Amino acid sequence: MVAEIIGIGSELLLGQIANTNAQFLSQQLSFLGIDVYWHIAVGDNRNRILEALKSASKRSDIIITTGGLGPTMDDISKETVAEFLGMGLEIHEPSLKRIEQYFKSTGRIMTENNKKQAMFPKEAKVLQNDVGTAPGAIIEKDNKTYIVLPGPPAEMQHMFINYVLPHLADKSDKKIFSRVLHVFGIGESTIENRIKDLLLRQGNPTIAPLASYGEVKLRITAKASSQQEAEKLIKPIQSEIEKRFGSDIYGYDDDTLEKVAVNMLRDRNLKLALAESCTGGHLSDLITNIPGASDVLLESCITYSNEAKIKRLGVAADTIKTYGAVSWQTAKQMAEGIRRSSGADIGAAVTGIAGPGGGTQKKPVGLVYMAISGLNGTETKEFRLSGSRLGIKHRSSLHLLNWLRLYLINNY
Amino acid sequence: MVAEIIGIGSELLLGQIANTNAQFLSQQLSFLGIDVYWHIAVGDNRNRILEALKSASKRSDIIITTGGLGPTMDDISKETVAEFLGMGLEIHEPSLKRIEQYFKSTGRIMTENNKKQAMFPKEAKVLQNDVGTAPGAIIEKDNKTYIVLPGPPAEMQHMFINYVLPHLADKSDKKIFSRVLHVFGIGESTIENRIKDLLLRQGNPTIAPLASYGEVKLRITAKASSQQEAEKLIKPIQSEIEKRFGSDIYGYDDDTLEKVAVNMLRDRNLKLALAESCTGGHLSDLITNIPGASDVLLESCITYSNEAKIKRLGVAADTIKTYGAVSWQTAKQMAEGIRRSSGADIGAAVTGIAGPGGGTQKKPVGLVYMAISGLNGTETKEFRLSGSRLGIKHRSSLHLLNWLRLYLINNY
Repeated sequence: MVAEIIGIGSELLLGQIANTNAQFLSQQLSFLGIDVYWHIAVGDNRNRILEALKSASKRSDIIITTGGLGPTMDDISKETVAEFLGMGLEIHEPSLKRIEQYFKSTGRIMTENNKKQAMFPKEAKVLQNDVGTAPGAIIEKDNKTYIVLPGPPAEMQHMFINYVLPHLADKSDKKIFSRVLHVFGIGESTIENRIKDLLLRQGNPTIAPLASYGEVKLRITAKASSQQEAEKLIKPIQSEIEKRFGSDIYGYDDDTLEKVAVNMLRDRNLKLALAESCTGGHLSDLITNIPGASDVLLESCITYSNEAKIKRLGVAADTIKTYGAVSWQTAKQMAEGIRRSSGADIGAAVTGIAGPGGGTQKKPVGLVYMAISGLNGTETKEFRLSGSRLGIKHRSSLHLLNWLRLYLINNY
Repeated sequence: MVAEIIGIGSELLLGQIANTNAQFLSQQLSFLGIDVYWHIAVGDNRNRILEALKSASKRSDIIITTGGLGPTMDDISKETVAEFLGMGLEIHEPSLKRIEQYFKSTGRIMTENNKKQAMFPKEAKVLQNDVGTAPGAIIEKDNKTYIVLPGPPAEMQHMFINYVLPHLADKSDKKIFSRVLHVFGIGESTIENRIKDLLLRQGNPTIAPLASYGEVKLRITAKASSQQEAEKLIKPIQSEIEKRFGSDIYGYDDDTLEKVAVNMLRDRNLKLALAESCTGGHLSDLITNIPGASDVLLESCITYSNEAKIKRLGVAADTIKTYGAVSWQTAKQMAEGIRRSSGADIGAAVTGIAGPGGGTQKKPVGLVYMAISGLNGTETKEFRLSGSRLGIKHRSSLHLLNWLRLYLINNY
């Protein structure tokens, strides 16, 4: 079964908002095992809405519109769907009562044009709106299902979950289950080469790689009639991928590197302290986004100036003079300094050139040194990263988190 | 002139990501006075990409695709556009060299499938990718313009701004010019009330408020044939708004609070140091996103633990014991401590409860204290903010930046 989502509203086409309704509905439909092949967005324009409905009804079984159910003149989604289906509109009494009640309870005055929101084809199953005034509708015609939903995400989501989902679940027997494997530090094309055989013979489940910032998510998706059956299908593929990538897989489903790092430190009862230079607080920001980060992070020193590196962390002035602030020698002393002065179990440091200025031929933008200091001494690493200033800050932070994770596996 | 945006990628149809590329491009095109009537999203599927191109080429002058330019087998956007236009692909040598160089400079291994990214129709104007490997292209055929862009937003935006915008600006005769006024710390509805008369009689230019995180952007947009003519239309409205909001307007166009703060510090030749607790590095991260932040920021101490507040900043143990780590007394000593120990002209501090845990009836989640210490002593402020953990971190950081800006105006 194939669904198509038509977002209606000029605010989409002016770029005032992103079409997050299409994203939400696609997710929900995919859980139901209903394929979505097309997203469309058009303005509040009769001809284009009709054109979109015409194409959609040719190629899809379920056509969902969002938006254009408001009380004003330019809201014409329902009227146009009814016109397309050759149906008239009449007052739906229960909806009118609900709208009147809604205005009464919020102390606002109901205007004549709000009545428009209670008009529906008599063939429609009207969907009540528990968080706003515009009801939605499900209309079945010629083996196609037309679903008309309001545009405000909170109203649309509430209506979909409560009134549309049960209706669609009856139609679909196979559901979709996914497991996401997070791989860090290997390029997308290398990953694909290493699982080419699996990709070539995929069927059910499917395997989809998605790359961003040095990370590749491998999504294994199975169509099955139950969670248990899906697990059975996913398990062997997952095990095979785990065998091939080992500890380069850092997590599952909604894991992030910062979440995994915080959890690993907590599990080992270890305290962390950070010394950041080129990342300028971004690494600490990521870590402290995780609730309970205070269990494991004692403090961070963002030693942007050389003086701060010397005074806060005890980096030797000579080291900076001889090797530069961007060097493995400085990174090493930063990590050791923050560990010593904070009393943390592990000190981690990063120093580099985030750009756009400050690069030289010998030390170009993107050159980053990191160090981790712990029970068994201090290790350092050199990275050559690319991208914008923000990109380099972010990539540096992720590389340090990933290294910290591997360091904990090997040393604690 | 009418443009149509075709997002390509199964991740869109599975709802893994929202189509923010369509939003960005729509905004940019609307500034150019180019109408967008259709957004389409399809998967990495040859037949559906062809179908989308066919409809788009019938009704639109400019067809922009995003996504599907990666090195892997399922990336077929460029190939399918070329097929649709009846063009072949050949190696574009400058692109191949750039890709080889990219892999060399990042120390990663280039695989055979990366070569695919350098294949283009010989008719194409190839657009270089300054932040990734996939080049884009502009192809003109039969009075239609086909623009093929990569999917990752950072790459797409950079390429559009630098290489597509100048190309399209030449095509449009009536252009749209905007001036954005950034107001911080006043609610959207209050702002709307204070300029209701201007909003009611707007025509050309238009005035559009857009709210996010305690900030309201007022965009004044004029349609005109030249920058000069647009300035003439925009100027009187802008002056009127400036008169009404005074120093609550912190900046213009692409200004951000952190950019304005860094510039003001640099202009006054002042050095800043920060002590962050609940913001966990987010404030420093924002400031160090600005190129040249190192001119003004000496260092930050993210003193997450009480011990760090005492040891790094000299906060009195008694103060924390008596008033708590989240108190104006602690904030004051943090700001004074970071100023003294760093040698900065200005020390700023923030301590609060970001949640979701850690709140009490007396000190709920969202309670935040800030302090700024400078030449004329130390001032403190209390804020009661709402939102998620990340929202409170972000709002706190913006409030501190805005206060710092006003503090500099009043004291330096």
